[in-house]
Amino acid sequence: VEKPLAQARATEKTGFRPIRWVDGGVELIDQTLLPLEEVWLRFDGYRDVVAAIRDMKIRGAPAIGVAGGYAIALAGAEIAERADGDFMSQLETAGSEIAAARPTAVNLAWAVGRMLDLAAKLGSDPDIVTKLISEAKRIQDEDEAANVRMGEFGAALLPEGGSILTHCNTGALATGGFGTALGVIRTAWSQGRIAHVYATETRPFMQGARLTAWELVNAGIDSTLITDSSAGQLMRRGKVHAVILGADRIAANGDIANKIGTYSLAVLAREHGIPFYVAAPTSTIDLSLPSGDDIPIEERPADEVTHIRGKRIAPVGINVLNTAFDITPHEFVTGIVTENGVARSPYSLSLKKATEGTLG
Amino acid sequence: VEKPLAQARATEKTGFRPIRWVDGGVELIDQTLLPLEEVWLRFDGYRDVVAAIRDMKIRGAPAIGVAGGYAIALAGAEIAERADGDFMSQLETAGSEIAAARPTAVNLAWAVGRMLDLAAKLGSDPDIVTKLISEAKRIQDEDEAANVRMGEFGAALLPEGGSILTHCNTGALATGGFGTALGVIRTAWSQGRIAHVYATETRPFMQGARLTAWELVNAGIDSTLITDSSAGQLMRRGKVHAVILGADRIAANGDIANKIGTYSLAVLAREHGIPFYVAAPTSTIDLSLPSGDDIPIEERPADEVTHIRGKRIAPVGINVLNTAFDITPHEFVTGIVTENGVARSPYSLSLKKATEGTLG
Repeated sequence: VEKPLAQARATEKTGFRPIRWVDGGVELIDQTLLPLEEVWLRFDGYRDVVAAIRDMKIRGAPAIGVAGGYAIALAGAEIAERADGDFMSQLETAGSEIAAARPTAVNLAWAVGRMLDLAAKLGSDPDIVTKLISEAKRIQDEDEAANVRMGEFGAALLPEGGSILTHCNTGALATGGFGTALGVIRTAWSQGRIAHVYATETRPFMQGARLTAWELVNAGIDSTLITDSSAGQLMRRGKVHAVILGADRIAANGDIANKIGTYSLAVLAREHGIPFYVAAPTSTIDLSLPSGDDIPIEERPADEVTHIRGKRIAPVGINVLNTAFDITPHEFVTGIVTENGVARSPYSLSLKKATEGTLG
Repeated sequence: VEKPLAQARATEKTGFRPIRWVDGGVELIDQTLLPLEEVWLRFDGYRDVVAAIRDMKIRGAPAIGVAGGYAIALAGAEIAERADGDFMSQLETAGSEIAAARPTAVNLAWAVGRMLDLAAKLGSDPDIVTKLISEAKRIQDEDEAANVRMGEFGAALLPEGGSILTHCNTGALATGGFGTALGVIRTAWSQGRIAHVYATETRPFMQGARLTAWELVNAGIDSTLITDSSAGQLMRRGKVHAVILGADRIAANGDIANKIGTYSLAVLAREHGIPFYVAAPTSTIDLSLPSGDDIPIEERPADEVTHIRGKRIAPVGINVLNTAFDITPHEFVTGIVTENGVARSPYSLSLKKATEGTLG
């Protein structure tokens, strides 16, 4: 039953965070078990956080950035406790290891870089570990606050009374809190601006079916889960009025690296004259890379495709290509929503301004 | 390791059939259990065949046509045995029930119609049951033979040394034997004409991952399984040189009803200048429907999306849209391979000729 748009909707609170710093350690909700089980894991060593990122117990570009920040804080505490050898060089070694956990999202390398820069500046400050912990918390707080601002900028773009299609998970679970594209949807829904959300299931890891659907149900947003390949027909039938999704890295020219399937949705949206928006904090923008073809793309294990929840689906002996991300050229992108405003073509100019906070 | 194309490849025999008439009953391989288990089911009552079609233990437009023919033969035997009331009116009632098992593929209604037409012509012929059984076997034999001819016509269209993308399952399992689009691929591979096949997994029922992958591995064809949403990026990277897939119904204007996701692939193929072929026997062509928008489209149960092999993936409470087929407008279709030759635009003329066997 479609609720009338005029009806007041409970404003979404930022509330839920998928990762938090508690009593000198990192706690995170195991996203491989959602939505069936809500299990919180606790890690006191940075290598356990690296493994959790690699195994996608925490995922989503901004969320793994936050996790990377906390991992550096944990590494700093471990190195300080050991008090054996040069602090900074050991922290840099740990930083390389953390940044290498997953290659495509730039937020991880960005957060590690920010933490190492601070450590270098602090030098032999006796409070360095405490200050690293504060900085990691600040990364999370800033990310959440950026998402809330993005929500306001993005909601204003969405068509009134429209149905919005999104891909993968870009909600609170994917970020420090609140969400990027799903944060925009959350804001637009709480404003009564949009009528419905279509969430793609997002094979092979099912972030849409497992995580976005969980967040949508929890938020009480009218929504429908579809298979990835249903999006084209829905658009042809006029059921989709805008697409909004996230990004794992944005090149200087506006090319987008995001979850596999993003490019197909972009082509389909253009075919049907549907606006195609990306929502991502400026920490996702990598001005050092001229174009999307310079972005490293992660290949993931075959068994994510051949097995589901540990059960084999495909026959033994079949080759698999499990490319986790794709590149969407900037000409398909209607606008990029950041915490500093909406960047539009030409992106080589607008993205630079977005990172400088001068979009105006 | 890519085998050199020049290397001799074993010619594929037609051999495998997913359904057969044995000792007065129907035997079929349970396609919901493949590729993990190869279980043959036996049915002696037509209603069991109807249930098997509805539950997709047998699927694929031509294969359910064959099953429909055998179901009429079983119904005829049951009615004759009962010898209570008018044979023909009872057979027609059974025919309506059989034809309604699944709505989108026209082959089912077509086969039922053919069987009922014969029964009406035979009237009170004492050998009517034997003759209905022979007719049902003939439908299967003709379907297999048509597929082999289609294989020759279609293989000649595929780019030499190319990589071919296909969707869903259109192999021996989907037909009376040999396959439609996968039959074309089989022929092209045995000719050394093509280098590689990409098979989409085809959510939600995983006909690609489970059935096409099984047939490709068994046939020794170099192939790779991908998620449905990977196709766009593969095309962008120049890895796909032609698309060929099947159809569940083809309208008089050439619009195609086929497995959900077909339309997305068609849009992506056109975006990348890749030829997009459909392979289907003339029994799939429905000249009574002017356009694809007249084709009934089946909605299937939500749990095909929310559960995999009985295990829940998505949260309780999420709405699901599980549209099993989509419509691809004829302007996206480069050619339609039939057993009577290749129909091309304008399809309103060429499809009529294909059904008449006058394509030339």
